[in-house]
Amino acid sequence: MTGPAPHDPSQPWLWPEETWRAKLAKVRAGRSLMPRQWKGGARMAVALSFDSDHETFELKNGGTSIGKMSQGQYGARRGIGRVLAALERHAVPASFFMPAVVAMINPDEVRSVIANGHEIALHSWIHEFNSGLDHATERDLALRAAEVLEKLSGVRPVGMRTASWDFSPHTLAIAREMGLLYDSSLMADDEPYELLEDDEPTGIVEIPVEWIRDDAPYVAMDRMTGTRPYGSPTMVADIFARELDMAWEEGGLFQLTMHPHHIGHRSRMFILEDIIRLAKSKGDVWFCTHADLARYCADECGLATPAPRA
Amino acid sequence: MTGPAPHDPSQPWLWPEETWRAKLAKVRAGRSLMPRQWKGGARMAVALSFDSDHETFELKNGGTSIGKMSQGQYGARRGIGRVLAALERHAVPASFFMPAVVAMINPDEVRSVIANGHEIALHSWIHEFNSGLDHATERDLALRAAEVLEKLSGVRPVGMRTASWDFSPHTLAIAREMGLLYDSSLMADDEPYELLEDDEPTGIVEIPVEWIRDDAPYVAMDRMTGTRPYGSPTMVADIFARELDMAWEEGGLFQLTMHPHHIGHRSRMFILEDIIRLAKSKGDVWFCTHADLARYCADECGLATPAPRA
Amino acid sequence: MTGPAPHDPSQPWLWPEETWRAKLAKVRAGRSLMPRQWKGGARMAVALSFDSDHETFELKNGGTSIGKMSQGQYGARRGIGRVLAALERHAVPASFFMPAVVAMINPDEVRSVIANGHEIALHSWIHEFNSGLDHATERDLALRAAEVLEKLSGVRPVGMRTASWDFSPHTLAIAREMGLLYDSSLMADDEPYELLEDDEPTGIVEIPVEWIRDDAPYVAMDRMTGTRPYGSPTMVADIFARELDMAWEEGGLFQLTMHPHHIGHRSRMFILEDIIRLAKSKGDVWFCTHADLARYCADECGLATPAPRA
Amino acid sequence: MTGPAPHDPSQPWLWPEETWRAKLAKVRAGRSLMPRQWKGGARMAVALSFDSDHETFELKNGGTSIGKMSQGQYGARRGIGRVLAALERHAVPASFFMPAVVAMINPDEVRSVIANGHEIALHSWIHEFNSGLDHATERDLALRAAEVLEKLSGVRPVGMRTASWDFSPHTLAIAREMGLLYDSSLMADDEPYELLEDDEPTGIVEIPVEWIRDDAPYVAMDRMTGTRPYGSPTMVADIFARELDMAWEEGGLFQLTMHPHHIGHRSRMFILEDIIRLAKSKGDVWFCTHADLARYCADECGLATPAPRA
Repeated sequence: MTGPAPHDPSQPWLWPEETWRAKLAKVRAGRSLMPRQWKGGARMAVALSFDSDHETFELKNGGTSIGKMSQGQYGARRGIGRVLAALERHAVPASFFMPAVVAMINPDEVRSVIANGHEIALHSWIHEFNSGLDHATERDLALRAAEVLEKLSGVRPVGMRTASWDFSPHTLAIAREMGLLYDSSLMADDEPYELLEDDEPTGIVEIPVEWIRDDAPYVAMDRMTGTRPYGSPTMVADIFARELDMAWEEGGLFQLTMHPHHIGHRSRMFILEDIIRLAKSKGDVWFCTHADLARYCADECGLATPAPRA
Repeated sequence: MTGPAPHDPSQPWLWPEETWRAKLAKVRAGRSLMPRQWKGGARMAVALSFDSDHETFELKNGGTSIGKMSQGQYGARRGIGRVLAALERHAVPASFFMPAVVAMINPDEVRSVIANGHEIALHSWIHEFNSGLDHATERDLALRAAEVLEKLSGVRPVGMRTASWDFSPHTLAIAREMGLLYDSSLMADDEPYELLEDDEPTGIVEIPVEWIRDDAPYVAMDRMTGTRPYGSPTMVADIFARELDMAWEEGGLFQLTMHPHHIGHRSRMFILEDIIRLAKSKGDVWFCTHADLARYCADECGLATPAPRA
Repeated sequence: MTGPAPHDPSQPWLWPEETWRAKLAKVRAGRSLMPRQWKGGARMAVALSFDSDHETFELKNGGTSIGKMSQGQYGARRGIGRVLAALERHAVPASFFMPAVVAMINPDEVRSVIANGHEIALHSWIHEFNSGLDHATERDLALRAAEVLEKLSGVRPVGMRTASWDFSPHTLAIAREMGLLYDSSLMADDEPYELLEDDEPTGIVEIPVEWIRDDAPYVAMDRMTGTRPYGSPTMVADIFARELDMAWEEGGLFQLTMHPHHIGHRSRMFILEDIIRLAKSKGDVWFCTHADLARYCADECGLATPAPRA
Repeated sequence: MTGPAPHDPSQPWLWPEETWRAKLAKVRAGRSLMPRQWKGGARMAVALSFDSDHETFELKNGGTSIGKMSQGQYGARRGIGRVLAALERHAVPASFFMPAVVAMINPDEVRSVIANGHEIALHSWIHEFNSGLDHATERDLALRAAEVLEKLSGVRPVGMRTASWDFSPHTLAIAREMGLLYDSSLMADDEPYELLEDDEPTGIVEIPVEWIRDDAPYVAMDRMTGTRPYGSPTMVADIFARELDMAWEEGGLFQLTMHPHHIGHRSRMFILEDIIRLAKSKGDVWFCTHADLARYCADECGLATPAPRA
């Protein structure tokens, strides 16, 4: 037990300190980017987002289940329409994270999202889990996805959310190379922060997500495993409301992730509408896209953001 | 990464576009078959269905558990009686999807269902998961199941629901060969639609199901996995009611799936009765079998339905 | 597909009819043993039971987890005392199903249960899952368990509940050889029925259980799998109450299974007390042990019960 | 079946009595250490604890998920601050169980906990599951962890909670060798008790935990398994309150475990605050650290506690 211990990943209790410190430091939360006040002096920022995975949640697994692909198609055929209508009714902007393949299947959806003043941002190629890819493949898919989204939407995406809500050891380097303004996949805070890579500031804004503020963990169904929709819609609405109430108390950010093929169902749309109504009832609230939020935080906190790639 | 990428099902992010487009197109939702109004001018259609799996939910796995078969027998011995009595009390029709083996075990149940004015439709041979079968086996079982149901019920079934709530690449071809009017296994919409096969209209009506509007995901129990009855009956009733309320708002279809061995229990029957009462309280509602619904939608929308097999 | 099909357990859709009919007939629900009225003219029978598994729920897996054994010991050290006190306070009898090893660990518990007028019945040797044993081993364990319980309690057990809530192909034959009055492990009805073996009446009364009326599925915790206590105590109380309410409506039997190491916790004891209070509030209720119930049903329905082994 | 049976761990039903008796006796609950009254004559003792696992809940698995490590970092960056502030606001002490690696990552957190009058106690090296380690490795990690905590906090820890909430066959021997006052990992009672090893009193106080009184089982999320946050915050609050209510009725101990990266979220902090308020509303309550509790129980019950190691 004395002397140099091995780095065996299956026995981390034998690691020397530098091993686990290096793991921690690879990507880590740096300084807070919470501004003194939100845009226009608002007390709370509300950033709604939708991961428009649609059919890719099954295509990424090989696309063998026609039933699951129909479940995903529901997102495009029914879910997105209800979501866009609700956002329009309440006049609030949102960010839509779209796998490139979803954008290619549904170019009208892309145009519709942009035409309604929302943001489109990166969400992988075909919902592949980036964490298992080699650097070249992950990079190639990211670059191609950005090109697809830009071509179909007319706007170059400035932010991303990984499909796995996780990073490979290469993800952050790729985001920096692409000149992205922000990522929204990690969970170290409620408020935006700057990402560090190997203890160095990166200029990338992290807009943290959380499973708690995501519809999928509560209602996703997978027949072949024990994953079931045990989370009642009223419970989901209650949890989101509690997160928002405390964000208001703290004068902070309330960030939320939903999926058109989950939240877009008849029995769940009220969750989205209720949370918008609750936010509005507070009074002084800034509804923003993730891109607006990242830019504002970067500016207010004097972040040296990387120049977008030409 | 350039040049022709492989079709490796474990690496869909390397697929060329034609690969995933072909997967998507295999079976896909086509035009909506939602009529301008429901039969008799009703504002909402309500199509209740029961998957009478009974003992086959264990027989399909090899039938080694006597306990699970007794749990299934409950459906035939207790559940179905309570269900039929409730439907009679409220004077509403429903569709019963029965594996052929269940019909052979319970010929009286078949007669009783028909005598009460309900529909009997296909639900596999012995609840086998069709998605893993070769074409010849799946076809043979489907044809034999139709013969069994016709012989025992006196009526040739015009619709089907796969046991897996999924399609193999051959399922739709088999349904077309059989001249079926409708399928009710997929999930791309809340309203009926026409199924496309390889981008071509098929004339088959899809009456979409959803796990959300199914009792089993919430209450099924499997001792050997983590599947547990964590979904409270009151939550299930609440979710069904929310789906129905919004169907009413939209002037649409409310389709529901239950299982006699689940819903037929003393603590759950109120869910069925409450949903019927709620539907009736709306006023102008058309309660219909799946066959009635499919025929009406096909007629109203000018669908070229295939001629039933002679 | 024509001609004799194989009996391959992995392909039940190829079985000939006699194969699945034989599987179904091995053990099956026969005639109902619900009497015209319950003892003393009561409208409802209430049969409470406790599976006193204690430490054996871990010993049966090899007993490697000291933590899980402590969790089981809670049943003996705290749970059983609270349960017996509650039953005494409300003056209602119950049946305790005990693995022989639990009786040997806690002989005082055995005596205490008997001294309070309750029943002790068979529940395997060490909570082994009988369904995987060969005939000789299952038989030997059953005979030895009966001897242990008789020796420690002074009363020969007349009923059993398998630890797996399942039967091997030999379980019923063993119960018949032992001259047992009843079994309480299967689920084909809400009311007692006679067990058939290969289509022949056996004279054995089945008092059906259900996971629905069991505390464990809702609250059991297993760190290494996804099994978690997601079922809230108030939900469990609500489900039990709904089962009881409908049993009262039907004039039937309300049977319930609990575990001292689950229900005996401070946050759950109210479930037991509430259900007793609810039953009493109905008025005309017969609280009985499973043995009393089986005897009464056998007598009222003229069942030719086997003579107990000398 | 007669004659000496094997000790095969996969066939415990064949074990001779001495085999399972030895397993039971290895570590077992001895005499109760519940004092006649709590300190200062209080009717109830309330011992709050926090397992500050932070990033180690992923490092212990090899630290491959940057996303999970960010989720853990939330505990240090946000959770702990909210927890300490709530404890200060209500002026109640608590015990913090910290893996040594967490203490090394967050030395300020260690100082802050101590400066606020709380206890720091052992919780493994890097959250490794002790149950799978050999004696020498487990011992070495325990000794080194104690040194790290003592060095960083200035106080030698007197108690421990294993990361697995389980014991290896060596854990208790190690705790005795270290001269620990108490352990808090096992579950055989609601009240403190003395641990026995091979039927001999050890002088070690056990302050029992339970998954029921732990936030993690209800809300933990693991994308790769079926573990999901299905337990609603209101349910968790209700369960904790029921445990506390009955502890008050019995004049006993209410012990609770939380995790800063779980309870410290905006939607869950109310659970902690509500339980403190509920306890205070009872009136005569002793809020204590686990160390205070163990010392008081040892003294009041005349326990021959081992001398702390020099």
